[in-house]
Amino acid sequence: MTSFAILGHLAHTDGDFSLNDLPGAGRMDVLCRCVNASLFLSHDLRRDVDCYLVLLGKPKAPRTLLFRGSEIRSLSPDERSAGALIKKGLSIPCGSEFREAAPGVFVRNAGLERLFAEHAFAVLDENGTDIRTVTTMPDALLLSDHQNFSDEEELLIKNAPRYSVGPACLHADHTITVISNELDRRKHGWK
Amino acid sequence: MTSFAILGHLAHTDGDFSLNDLPGAGRMDVLCRCVNASLFLSHDLRRDVDCYLVLLGKPKAPRTLLFRGSEIRSLSPDERSAGALIKKGLSIPCGSEFREAAPGVFVRNAGLERLFAEHAFAVLDENGTDIRTVTTMPDALLLSDHQNFSDEEELLIKNAPRYSVGPACLHADHTITVISNELDRRKHGWK
Repeated sequence: MTSFAILGHLAHTDGDFSLNDLPGAGRMDVLCRCVNASLFLSHDLRRDVDCYLVLLGKPKAPRTLLFRGSEIRSLSPDERSAGALIKKGLSIPCGSEFREAAPGVFVRNAGLERLFAEHAFAVLDENGTDIRTVTTMPDALLLSDHQNFSDEEELLIKNAPRYSVGPACLHADHTITVISNELDRRKHGWK
Repeated sequence: MTSFAILGHLAHTDGDFSLNDLPGAGRMDVLCRCVNASLFLSHDLRRDVDCYLVLLGKPKAPRTLLFRGSEIRSLSPDERSAGALIKKGLSIPCGSEFREAAPGVFVRNAGLERLFAEHAFAVLDENGTDIRTVTTMPDALLLSDHQNFSDEEELLIKNAPRYSVGPACLHADHTITVISNELDRRKHGWK
């Protein structure tokens, strides 16, 4: 069981955004690609993965969406499909506990602090330890979107282990893909 | 210098498709994600990468688009942005030689056979040799979209080396991301 969490620093927190302009909704396109990278295999889904999106933009931040691989239906790989489920999740009223908005898609009014207390996150960081050298892969991994972690977030995550996937600075979704490949290889005894 | 080529077996070959339904244009969304995976770094582009899309769907197949990392401008990471450049490329008349449709985006009326004669392609195949064990990384890599290679294509590529990125069967764009990570690591002396 692996959990990915992605911080969307500007990501819109109401369902009133347009699927024709996902970048305009606080770079919602970044988060859509992270959902894809976390959950898709070729012609299959990664049923053992949860993907959390922590949305920190206007007007109702913080909100957290959970895409649960074991329960999700009606998700296609294109950005618009993930965007439609995000929109659906953000369109229903919810409180501080997860409420199901569509099969496998949940939403709650809470942010990183709550999520960080629930999982032993490792942080993806270009200056971290090479993930290929790590003896035991983490069960939960936290990434930022196109922005760096804020000072407040850095304080929260300061004691978490930090891992890097390589020498180049990658988009969050590409980083998730490389991590998933490393997990696949270890699970099946590939070096 | 690395070249990726992706076969779009059903990809529409005229510019009259809708950016609001990229999957409906012969799974153009798959090809858009491959452009993204080939060319994007975080806050930068991979200037040493060419990405070829071989479009084999109706009504004007075969056509080939080239996205040249060293020359491209006006490309954002979202699917719609790559889709808009594909649409632009497919909207201009062209012959059998590449014609520039936008900065760094070229189009010609030709298919895999022509491209295969111009590059020493290795083929990405889930049953191929593990890419991490390969001594010299290939300069040109060929992938299929959501469909397998056809019998005719298999005949054309039958003598090409075949490589796999891992034990799980991945989408073409995820495969490109893992290959790019392997190239990054070798280039910078990471094991």
